[in-house]
Amino acid sequence: MFSYNQLFNFTESVFLSMGCPEEDARLATEALLAADLRGVDSHGIARLIGYVRLWDAGRVNPKPEVRIIHETPSTATVDGDSGLGLVVAPKAMDIAIQKAQVAGSGWISVKNSNHFGIAGYHAMRALPHDMVGWAMTNASPLVAPTNSLDRLLGTNPIAIAIPASEEPDFIMDMATTTAANGKLEVLQRKKQRAPLGWVQTKEGKDSTDPEELKAGGAMLPLGGESASYKGYALGSVVDIFSAVLSGANYGPWVPPFVSFLPLPENPVGEGIGHFLGAMRVDGFRPADEFKAHMDNWIRTFRNSKAKPGEQVLIPGDPERLTSEQRMKEGIYLLDPVIKDLEELAKKFSLTF
Amino acid sequence: MFSYNQLFNFTESVFLSMGCPEEDARLATEALLAADLRGVDSHGIARLIGYVRLWDAGRVNPKPEVRIIHETPSTATVDGDSGLGLVVAPKAMDIAIQKAQVAGSGWISVKNSNHFGIAGYHAMRALPHDMVGWAMTNASPLVAPTNSLDRLLGTNPIAIAIPASEEPDFIMDMATTTAANGKLEVLQRKKQRAPLGWVQTKEGKDSTDPEELKAGGAMLPLGGESASYKGYALGSVVDIFSAVLSGANYGPWVPPFVSFLPLPENPVGEGIGHFLGAMRVDGFRPADEFKAHMDNWIRTFRNSKAKPGEQVLIPGDPERLTSEQRMKEGIYLLDPVIKDLEELAKKFSLTF
Repeated sequence: MFSYNQLFNFTESVFLSMGCPEEDARLATEALLAADLRGVDSHGIARLIGYVRLWDAGRVNPKPEVRIIHETPSTATVDGDSGLGLVVAPKAMDIAIQKAQVAGSGWISVKNSNHFGIAGYHAMRALPHDMVGWAMTNASPLVAPTNSLDRLLGTNPIAIAIPASEEPDFIMDMATTTAANGKLEVLQRKKQRAPLGWVQTKEGKDSTDPEELKAGGAMLPLGGESASYKGYALGSVVDIFSAVLSGANYGPWVPPFVSFLPLPENPVGEGIGHFLGAMRVDGFRPADEFKAHMDNWIRTFRNSKAKPGEQVLIPGDPERLTSEQRMKEGIYLLDPVIKDLEELAKKFSLTF
Repeated sequence: MFSYNQLFNFTESVFLSMGCPEEDARLATEALLAADLRGVDSHGIARLIGYVRLWDAGRVNPKPEVRIIHETPSTATVDGDSGLGLVVAPKAMDIAIQKAQVAGSGWISVKNSNHFGIAGYHAMRALPHDMVGWAMTNASPLVAPTNSLDRLLGTNPIAIAIPASEEPDFIMDMATTTAANGKLEVLQRKKQRAPLGWVQTKEGKDSTDPEELKAGGAMLPLGGESASYKGYALGSVVDIFSAVLSGANYGPWVPPFVSFLPLPENPVGEGIGHFLGAMRVDGFRPADEFKAHMDNWIRTFRNSKAKPGEQVLIPGDPERLTSEQRMKEGIYLLDPVIKDLEELAKKFSLTF
């Protein structure tokens, strides 16, 4: 078990060693560890070494100049200058928030970025401003569209954060596939089968083998047999908003997160793309009124009649409870992750 | 078989007979019949008698004054004045488009409205302006949240329309349930079973009986057994944006479409709610550049390797093909629908 502060200090020192300015190192650390706190272990400190390898491969600029290259009062395209998505996305989100302060809402499409950790973190930056936050990103192509054998989409998450008053905020953060890639990785580690509807074989047949991707198979869009076209459409919207709007790479051209895979040939844009949004709730009705009704909405749903032995949850409940627990009790890391962190400590002459 | 023009003239004359001004009657007719053209038979002329019954029950104002009651440069709340959703939603969408022309994007939450037909029609109004269009609405509560036995959400659709250049536009229009209610109605008429994952019994057990709702059962959110919490979250976002932002009724308080059911007690808002949005694509990059990349995106996905005997489709393809065919060959109506239309003809002394 490691305390949040322990992991924070170490992670920050790794980003500093990569050459990130202090403010950026702090931001990247907060964004990355939000995943470990919220229980999305696949997207947190376990990936730190992956970011360092991208930097080693010259694919991450530690001192990006994140700048607006096109804008209207409520929209903008931001060039991430090959920075860490963990830095570029929060900065773009802050531009969305500033635009919302003036124009009521702000919508930012980002190009030339890298993986940004969990979408929920970026969406939640809007909450203290009494705004609804949005965050999406495209990602390494692992998912086959309905009826296709080709991997053309990432797990392309959508996060939406909505402020409440006395109740905890409403936070949706979901991959547009049946299961996030991290859940497959867990099954791979435990040598367990996957439920039907998660992956298909190279030939497009249903499979329960979580290793199917290594054999040319693909992940499947949210919706299952009769409705995967819905997950496919949602994942496509994320790809288009993140990359076709901004000028990043889309579809099969999205650069892979792992540095040992080659970059796709003939790129159609720069880096990967994100889409971030902020809407002032008092752009619609007084914030107190809105938040009081959100409390009522949340209580109504939470207190509805549950199936025997089950509980009706509000989006964000499980992650918030995990976060509170881990802040108190610490964060458990798997041995291979600890090994990676020791390797990083050695590489940068740090103590872990 | 009936020609589109035949159905248009009759439907328009029904709305005129209800007292709608000419412009509104035309708008409502176009919005309603967009469903019949696009193959969403459950939401088109088959529901005309339902709208008339709501008017008979005093729940529809045929001469609404649709007006902005709160706004910023890129957001607004619109009061639909109890009008037909078929009239209120396009007018609100046009406000979103006007705001986008000035501020880059426009986002409208609507209260005090009624059912608006298919979401896709409203989103598509943005396309001729080179804008991305969004449309959502809440609806009669039929859907149980994950782990709940209570019906708290409607099928709450999300539509997003994205313009292309030479390729047909990308149009997603999906209920946030596994299956739209119209698909259940088709199974009910044909006395067929539903796939697992569509409905549950009153006790929360999986069921294949499409009549389950009449026995206190519920429809299920998109995602199936392992991921219904995602459809639940999406449907919740639609409910909150449509109604908590605007001041309409949400959750179990949404008034039912059928006029013979009583209105819920202690309403938390006015009427039902919609959420409409428009984003100028040139708020992000030049429109020609964007649309050329959309063409490339669409071709890449459409031409990907398909499963044997299958075809990879782009969201909107099936509805567009149906629309082209029905415009040419006419629209087939079921006998009960024809009977309803004859009843309306008699009621208003019209010829059908």
